[in-house]
Amino acid sequence: MFPKNTWYVACTPDEIDGKPLGRTVCNEKIVFFRAEEGKVAAVEDFCPHRGAPLSLGFVRDGQLVCGYHGLEMSCSGKCSSMPGQRVRGFPSIRAYPVEERHGFIWVWTGDAEQADPALIPELHWANDPAWAYGGGLYHVGCDYRLMVDNLMDLTHETYVHASSIGQPEIEESAPETKVDGDEVITSRYMENISAPPFWQAALRGNNLPDDQPVDRWQVCRFTPPSHVLIDVGVALAGKGGIDAPAEFKASSTVVDFITPETDTSIWYFWGMARNFNPEDQELTDRIREGQGTIFAEDLEILEAQQQNLLKYPDRKLLMLNIDGGGVQARRVIDRILKEEQSASPSTSAKAG
Amino acid sequence: MFPKNTWYVACTPDEIDGKPLGRTVCNEKIVFFRAEEGKVAAVEDFCPHRGAPLSLGFVRDGQLVCGYHGLEMSCSGKCSSMPGQRVRGFPSIRAYPVEERHGFIWVWTGDAEQADPALIPELHWANDPAWAYGGGLYHVGCDYRLMVDNLMDLTHETYVHASSIGQPEIEESAPETKVDGDEVITSRYMENISAPPFWQAALRGNNLPDDQPVDRWQVCRFTPPSHVLIDVGVALAGKGGIDAPAEFKASSTVVDFITPETDTSIWYFWGMARNFNPEDQELTDRIREGQGTIFAEDLEILEAQQQNLLKYPDRKLLMLNIDGGGVQARRVIDRILKEEQSASPSTSAKAG
Amino acid sequence: MFPKNTWYVACTPDEIDGKPLGRTVCNEKIVFFRAEEGKVAAVEDFCPHRGAPLSLGFVRDGQLVCGYHGLEMSCSGKCSSMPGQRVRGFPSIRAYPVEERHGFIWVWTGDAEQADPALIPELHWANDPAWAYGGGLYHVGCDYRLMVDNLMDLTHETYVHASSIGQPEIEESAPETKVDGDEVITSRYMENISAPPFWQAALRGNNLPDDQPVDRWQVCRFTPPSHVLIDVGVALAGKGGIDAPAEFKASSTVVDFITPETDTSIWYFWGMARNFNPEDQELTDRIREGQGTIFAEDLEILEAQQQNLLKYPDRKLLMLNIDGGGVQARRVIDRILKEEQSASPSTSAKAG
Repeated sequence: MFPKNTWYVACTPDEIDGKPLGRTVCNEKIVFFRAEEGKVAAVEDFCPHRGAPLSLGFVRDGQLVCGYHGLEMSCSGKCSSMPGQRVRGFPSIRAYPVEERHGFIWVWTGDAEQADPALIPELHWANDPAWAYGGGLYHVGCDYRLMVDNLMDLTHETYVHASSIGQPEIEESAPETKVDGDEVITSRYMENISAPPFWQAALRGNNLPDDQPVDRWQVCRFTPPSHVLIDVGVALAGKGGIDAPAEFKASSTVVDFITPETDTSIWYFWGMARNFNPEDQELTDRIREGQGTIFAEDLEILEAQQQNLLKYPDRKLLMLNIDGGGVQARRVIDRILKEEQSASPSTSAKAG
Repeated sequence: MFPKNTWYVACTPDEIDGKPLGRTVCNEKIVFFRAEEGKVAAVEDFCPHRGAPLSLGFVRDGQLVCGYHGLEMSCSGKCSSMPGQRVRGFPSIRAYPVEERHGFIWVWTGDAEQADPALIPELHWANDPAWAYGGGLYHVGCDYRLMVDNLMDLTHETYVHASSIGQPEIEESAPETKVDGDEVITSRYMENISAPPFWQAALRGNNLPDDQPVDRWQVCRFTPPSHVLIDVGVALAGKGGIDAPAEFKASSTVVDFITPETDTSIWYFWGMARNFNPEDQELTDRIREGQGTIFAEDLEILEAQQQNLLKYPDRKLLMLNIDGGGVQARRVIDRILKEEQSASPSTSAKAG
Repeated sequence: MFPKNTWYVACTPDEIDGKPLGRTVCNEKIVFFRAEEGKVAAVEDFCPHRGAPLSLGFVRDGQLVCGYHGLEMSCSGKCSSMPGQRVRGFPSIRAYPVEERHGFIWVWTGDAEQADPALIPELHWANDPAWAYGGGLYHVGCDYRLMVDNLMDLTHETYVHASSIGQPEIEESAPETKVDGDEVITSRYMENISAPPFWQAALRGNNLPDDQPVDRWQVCRFTPPSHVLIDVGVALAGKGGIDAPAEFKASSTVVDFITPETDTSIWYFWGMARNFNPEDQELTDRIREGQGTIFAEDLEILEAQQQNLLKYPDRKLLMLNIDGGGVQARRVIDRILKEEQSASPSTSAKAG
């Protein structure tokens, strides 16, 4: 159960560099490729000739060529040619609205008529030279909502990431959750604490001392369908915390785009955008590596949690104050799912 | 859905050399072994004592001995003895008609009464010293009919086997399909072209120049249930093509016996029979190695195609002129399936 | 289908040394850990907060701490604390009766009210310095009753363990089975035979000649739910066999505790208790290694047998005299299952 009339991150541009990419999104097998003039395209990964996945083929002159018998597919899902054949009467396959923006490729698996590119979230840091971004992709065997829960309750850092970003003060500071339309914001502020190892390194990366008391903040912002952007940082204690001048702090935005693959698996695009030393590629790489290691620590527990929930589907879970962000995010998701169902019952039924 | 009252290739003699072989054919678990006087035998792979697979046991004096408690099974499916037991009242297991012929072991999983060895296809090259044969076995996760389609439409060579036997001229020459009783023949002729790498090597193997224009042919012959023999070759251009004298051509027969394991997997026995330099074992080995590499290129696409068809079972596929061979072959298969069902509804039901 | 109101071996103490252990027993996911004062505890492996497996967490001061958000679980299944939370109203999870005894940890997955520790079998050798014990654990993909059958019919040694403990004389000597209440005893005696390799080594380990005729015995004792203890040994021929004075024999007790994991998989605790040279740890290790190798030989055939029975569920198996022990053991099990069902239909239904 996931919203369909929405943009999901499907892949990054490097994944379709010179070759098509087959990827299941929202239970649909889709092939992504660069069509004419380098424009990104997405069609069903199913050749109308004999059903072979088009993603096993190759791209030639902006057409996707089936690797089995050479049918040429255009970005519109219409067969453009086939050796020795007249293709005019060939059945088309479904083409998906797809956009390349902010360093990601976004796909819309719902009603194509509603696919307005203006609905793609604005990511100011993606197009601002004062910012740098590095990230990666994990495949995780869990419902996308379990990952939203995870990111909206950073209490888990104390346990799952004890050696890097976790510290006891996190769970000692109660988070606060508020809802603003479709956006859910969970904030936590910790004052006059010592910085954990990851943030010590970030302070050094920003030429600040790493052994002095800091104020630390985490502001998690959920927006539908399943994006979580988290403003995180530390400032030398007493300089204003999140509002401190740039020279006293190390801060960044944790980026999380969660794309359902199936009902119990996701493509998890994670990364970090920062606005200090943006031109330092070596720093970008080091941060990505560190973040990748930390975020990999979540995978085992999320997949085990999913298995437990599948085995005991009727168990009610607790909803504590720390779960507020996840709970509110699910309410937003549930409302959207309901709206989609009532707007177009037949489409939703197919979408299942 | 596969014909049952027919002979399938079960294995090659080397596979039962000194030990039994457990293999599922047409959804039935069967154990093959050499019984008395070296005669091949096939019985259910299920010990009537406690249900252990007999194929984990061993052969002693022509009896198949269960590796668990020593029950001795005869080629007839009757228990011949067991240590410390009177076996006269023991239940029998099913024995399958089985024949060793033409270098293969053939099994009949349908009604044993109809199992006439005369129905095993005649393979003239298998017993003719002017011919040599080399081949191998692949396990492939697809319906046997997808492999028949593959072999009856060699257009795919241009895409799947681009570096060895594929060449653009294949798809530029329309194939022709005709049906002769149960036999389906799809032929393609290409004139005055350059030989692709595999055939250049074959020309050299037959002491012919490899850099001159050739005429090339492919004559695919399907016979039920799922045998495809393909006459292929090249002759120096203008010497008569497929009918050219032997000293001007390199030709051979591609041999394909496709045995259903389950509804979506097969045992694929492939090989090549040739009538030039038959005594050159080193050439046989080299051809087999080359063919094995080429035929392995089909596996990924066939298995991916099968997965696509399982995910979208209601999609209609195209039937183009190039698909004529496969389409006609399926008509023959469908007719046989229908005949089997109407002849013996209860047996067919069991066979499912 | 397994008895629930009974004690099963869940694990050995070393498996919960310093960390919790997640293990499925009788289809229930359970976490075992050392609670306050080192007492063993067992609760559902499901954190009431968000459903993560508690076994991925850690033990602190006798409490099991969830590795996701720090909920602290007590041995009773009640949440004892959680950072920043009042836990009084938290739902409890199920706690299982569990006992540490005889070097094993025993769990009761049925009605806790009936869990009387006095029902744990008495294992005299486990607490007697005149005896030594060594053993191991195998995970096997078969119904627990197939393993009981295996152990109650040692005829299979001649085939499965031909190079170690098997010998033709086993199948030449008819076994005798008798039932004494819930206990089933199958005995086999062989006189004046040569000792197979494993027993030659044991004779040497007990400073006896290994090249003289011996009397050999195997007395298999099944007790519910699925314990099989086997008195085995050899004595120099004519000295009284199983009743021979200690200086003329090498004997031991094969220990088999079979714990259902699921309907078609088990945790198989195997070992050997001996009363010669008990202080010789090196001998214990050597025997364990030898036994581990021998018992591993059963796994392939048991798992293949299970697959065969799943594929052909309606086949009737033979019940020969050699199967008497297994057949009688199943009768005892069936009676207990029936009793459990009639005593508490609702519990049994849940237990399925």
